[in-house]
Amino acid sequence: MSVIDFLFGRPLRSSEERTERLGAAAGIPVFGLDALSSAAYGPEAALTLLISLGAVGVSYIFPITISIVILLLIVYVSYRQTIEAYPQGGGSYTVAGENLGPFAGLLAATALMIDYVLTAAVGISAGVGALVSAIPKLQPHTLMLCLVILFLIMLVNLRGSRETGFVFMIPTYLFLGTLGTTIVVGMGKAIVSGGHPTPVEAPPTLPAAAAAVSLWLLLKAFASGCTAMTGVEAVSNGVTAFREPVVQTARRTLTTVITLLAIMLLGIAYLCRAYQIGAVEPGPGYQSVLSQLTAAVVGRNVFYLVTIGSVLLVLSFSANTAFADFPRLCRLIAQDGYLPVPLAERGRRLVYTWGITTLALLCAALLILFGGVTDRLIPLYAVGAFLAFTLSQAGMVGHWRRKGGSRLAISLNALGAFATAATVIIVTITKFLAGAWITTLLIPLIMILMFAIRRHYDRLRAQIAHPGALDLTEVRPPIVVMPMMAWTRVSRAGLQIAFNISSEIHVVHVSTEEGDKEFDDDWCKAVEGPLHGSGLPMPKLKVLKSPYRFVIGPIVDYVLALEEKNPGRQIAVIIPELVEKYWYHNFLHNQRATWLKAALLMKGTRRIVTINVPWYID
Amino acid sequence: MSVIDFLFGRPLRSSEERTERLGAAAGIPVFGLDALSSAAYGPEAALTLLISLGAVGVSYIFPITISIVILLLIVYVSYRQTIEAYPQGGGSYTVAGENLGPFAGLLAATALMIDYVLTAAVGISAGVGALVSAIPKLQPHTLMLCLVILFLIMLVNLRGSRETGFVFMIPTYLFLGTLGTTIVVGMGKAIVSGGHPTPVEAPPTLPAAAAAVSLWLLLKAFASGCTAMTGVEAVSNGVTAFREPVVQTARRTLTTVITLLAIMLLGIAYLCRAYQIGAVEPGPGYQSVLSQLTAAVVGRNVFYLVTIGSVLLVLSFSANTAFADFPRLCRLIAQDGYLPVPLAERGRRLVYTWGITTLALLCAALLILFGGVTDRLIPLYAVGAFLAFTLSQAGMVGHWRRKGGSRLAISLNALGAFATAATVIIVTITKFLAGAWITTLLIPLIMILMFAIRRHYDRLRAQIAHPGALDLTEVRPPIVVMPMMAWTRVSRAGLQIAFNISSEIHVVHVSTEEGDKEFDDDWCKAVEGPLHGSGLPMPKLKVLKSPYRFVIGPIVDYVLALEEKNPGRQIAVIIPELVEKYWYHNFLHNQRATWLKAALLMKGTRRIVTINVPWYID
Repeated sequence: MSVIDFLFGRPLRSSEERTERLGAAAGIPVFGLDALSSAAYGPEAALTLLISLGAVGVSYIFPITISIVILLLIVYVSYRQTIEAYPQGGGSYTVAGENLGPFAGLLAATALMIDYVLTAAVGISAGVGALVSAIPKLQPHTLMLCLVILFLIMLVNLRGSRETGFVFMIPTYLFLGTLGTTIVVGMGKAIVSGGHPTPVEAPPTLPAAAAAVSLWLLLKAFASGCTAMTGVEAVSNGVTAFREPVVQTARRTLTTVITLLAIMLLGIAYLCRAYQIGAVEPGPGYQSVLSQLTAAVVGRNVFYLVTIGSVLLVLSFSANTAFADFPRLCRLIAQDGYLPVPLAERGRRLVYTWGITTLALLCAALLILFGGVTDRLIPLYAVGAFLAFTLSQAGMVGHWRRKGGSRLAISLNALGAFATAATVIIVTITKFLAGAWITTLLIPLIMILMFAIRRHYDRLRAQIAHPGALDLTEVRPPIVVMPMMAWTRVSRAGLQIAFNISSEIHVVHVSTEEGDKEFDDDWCKAVEGPLHGSGLPMPKLKVLKSPYRFVIGPIVDYVLALEEKNPGRQIAVIIPELVEKYWYHNFLHNQRATWLKAALLMKGTRRIVTINVPWYID
Repeated sequence: MSVIDFLFGRPLRSSEERTERLGAAAGIPVFGLDALSSAAYGPEAALTLLISLGAVGVSYIFPITISIVILLLIVYVSYRQTIEAYPQGGGSYTVAGENLGPFAGLLAATALMIDYVLTAAVGISAGVGALVSAIPKLQPHTLMLCLVILFLIMLVNLRGSRETGFVFMIPTYLFLGTLGTTIVVGMGKAIVSGGHPTPVEAPPTLPAAAAAVSLWLLLKAFASGCTAMTGVEAVSNGVTAFREPVVQTARRTLTTVITLLAIMLLGIAYLCRAYQIGAVEPGPGYQSVLSQLTAAVVGRNVFYLVTIGSVLLVLSFSANTAFADFPRLCRLIAQDGYLPVPLAERGRRLVYTWGITTLALLCAALLILFGGVTDRLIPLYAVGAFLAFTLSQAGMVGHWRRKGGSRLAISLNALGAFATAATVIIVTITKFLAGAWITTLLIPLIMILMFAIRRHYDRLRAQIAHPGALDLTEVRPPIVVMPMMAWTRVSRAGLQIAFNISSEIHVVHVSTEEGDKEFDDDWCKAVEGPLHGSGLPMPKLKVLKSPYRFVIGPIVDYVLALEEKNPGRQIAVIIPELVEKYWYHNFLHNQRATWLKAALLMKGTRRIVTINVPWYID
């Protein structure tokens, strides 16, 4: 087994595609991890903005969460309809593009792409950040740990979707199980105690209110809490990865994910109010909301450790959703010609190798740029998701109107579009200065780039398409040009090929400081001699003087002049080349063949072709 | 004027070589700077070892310097003879190689090469070090300054020898003038005052003796002082760079350099004793010997500043000798096949571009490795110079015996060989632990590499030499293979060429997921259609199934199988290739052409050639 097979698994036949498909159980870790893991930071993000309100703030978390969950359900219903309408994979890009035009589609796609890169980087660094605060000794290796996890996630994804599902299943279900248990136990205790349970371990007391309640503050908290909804789009985008019946499996996955997420969000919000748990400012003594909550409900025992451990795992693996979806999105865009073609090709394991690698590189760049601490990126990434939601749902409205959908379907999607559009506005405004401006700047830049790529492909296609039939009126051997510095076995091999191809042969000898006499002698003896009386034409020997010791330039000039003098003729330049067994032996040669090829390619025309004659050295 | 012309000057014709030659006045800065600048650190190096002897130590500096100067004169006489015997450039490599065999020649060359790299790095960092101690603000930029100076020296040398001479003339003569004046004035004052002059500014008082005089200590001081002799070899190595009459000009240059160096060494030693000036331990309060000396003789006035300034310049420019000589040495070795051929080629300005660049890179690596502070390298570099001296003079003894030289000539060179051999032993032993062991380890490693290179060239020559005459018994068109993914103008151009070259054409279509139907239609209409009844042979269409979506592999396998089935036949693989105008457009394509070429080159045989058909995109 080769190293590559060991790392990435054996290559998969195209016909094995079906076996690589996912059921709902494996689909949740692959496409739902991003959404589910946001239960771990969404409530915390909202609570952080309420710190200044003290105990009053905590009482607001429940209504804020309810509005987020309502929004979530609207989006859910909307995407359920999308999955049915687009069983071939209906992400925002497809839906918005088909119904609102390519511009809207690309806008949605760009917003999502930015989001995925951010999610992956933030997820990994959040997981590592939590690990590092648990084991402070690892602090100096933060970046290294982030990159190692990134690399592992990339590797697992390059092996294929099914393997990804299995690898991520355990931490996902552990997370769901422990957090679910905590919520159920906590709710039970709260209900039994009439809404005021006694914590096993008391959370830090809430600070005194430092500010009055304002609409602006509540909006900001809502906008921050909305980060919990990122990743919801993933399932509908990846429909094709599901097992038959595709639509049912995908829908079941989406329903499960959304239900679980809604329960967790509501449960956490309810328990925060019941146990009076608020966010703590970062710094010494910091404790995450989930950590306070679990400690309050069950105390700091083994179960607590397992819960927190699974949170860490799920956070850093949430990057995986981005890895599952980003390449699929890129592929769709590349198929339409707005991104480089290689992004649309499936690799040896039937996954989109280039998309996965691109995401890993972008993500690594972000991690390195921020030294593995990407907290400051969080405000950047709800804008993209909600922009995509809005466009996708507006697209669905268009879809129903064209296809004649039911009034209910139209109004559901319209409601979704309206609600998410309002959220985009709220999120952009409240987070603009904190970083959303970067996203609003990046989106048009990336779109300009994508339109430029498409324009390039269009121009390219115009230049190579519609070739017409083969033209057989002038089948005629090319004029062959062969540079020769000395008479060796290599140049002999080249010259033999010249004779095989054509009877018009120009041998070009660049005269440098030494060895001209020897060359002349060799030429007479080895070439002219056997040709006399053979009936074969004599090659033209052209000696080029090179006072400046340049070799490539004179040869290229000669070839170009020859091409100009012979309109309509093909010129074939024979370039013999030593091929060394070991790459480092190349340092022993002056690489003239390589340079000559490059120069001819740069300055040449379509009528000038090069013939590479390899001479292998043992 | 192009950027390249501006930076490096216009290209020079080979016939302009004569005008690039140097007279004695310009020859001193080019080939003498290394030797002359050592007056600035040789005496200090010896005095540093005598610190522990206190005032007694200073009284020993004069006899030690006298023995160094005697050694210097022996070496001088010896090299004078070498210049006459080898007017075509007689460095230690040539002299030892021709007379004692290639092993001795390479040994001398290796020693010298190591020495040159060290000299260049140490010279530049010493100059910058002095500058930085004068302007402490520059301290954090030490490495950057070193690299900038290195880059400038490289640039000046790439422009050519004559330009180098002019650029370095001013600092060299300023250094000689000011230091000479100081010595003359100081000697005058000393003689007038009967050997006990009153210093204008008193040097720091000498420390009390902390050790007793021992032979070991004096030998160490002698060995350190011998660093003053490095660089003496340069003139005889560069004889060909001098103006006609070559031997006389080179000899005059050598005589001037040695005389000036001897005078400076003796003058400095005499004045050190007269003014009771010793070396000062590095650290706070450090002052170089030359600085103390100048201050004692003339005081700290403008003249003092000019003197010290010229010392700094000359020290950092002393690297230039290495740049003048290292490439010439490499060229000689490369011509004999012990170093890569490109090192023997002269660039656009008639200098050995690769040698200069190699030296700059090695030197930059050393500077970066040591952060611009290369003091620790000083002990490494007298061994090389004296080893080269010894071998060169032993070689001269052999030369005279073969050519029947006079008894005087033989004994002069024998004396030189003996004296320098003794010095090699002293230097190696006294400095072994301080770093000379690295040199003694590096020398055999580099020699092994050089012999390996020579062996490779020999094997290569055996494989390409004596080709015999052209074989015209079997002139026959090759079998043409052309991969075709779709019928476009690009593949049409490729197929036209195939028809021009041969009547046996195999078109290989790798069947991937889509587009097969379209391809079949196109093939029927555009290729088979016009060929019917044309009298031309129909190309074989071979469809390769690729269940794993590999494209390159199946094509290469097909070509290899075809080659095996047709022994004695040439296979030409036509590879059409899009040529984009801008390099970054290449990211838009999957580079299959490039990969296919690489794979064929790697797995192919001599009978498989590739034909590159460029298709230019506007």
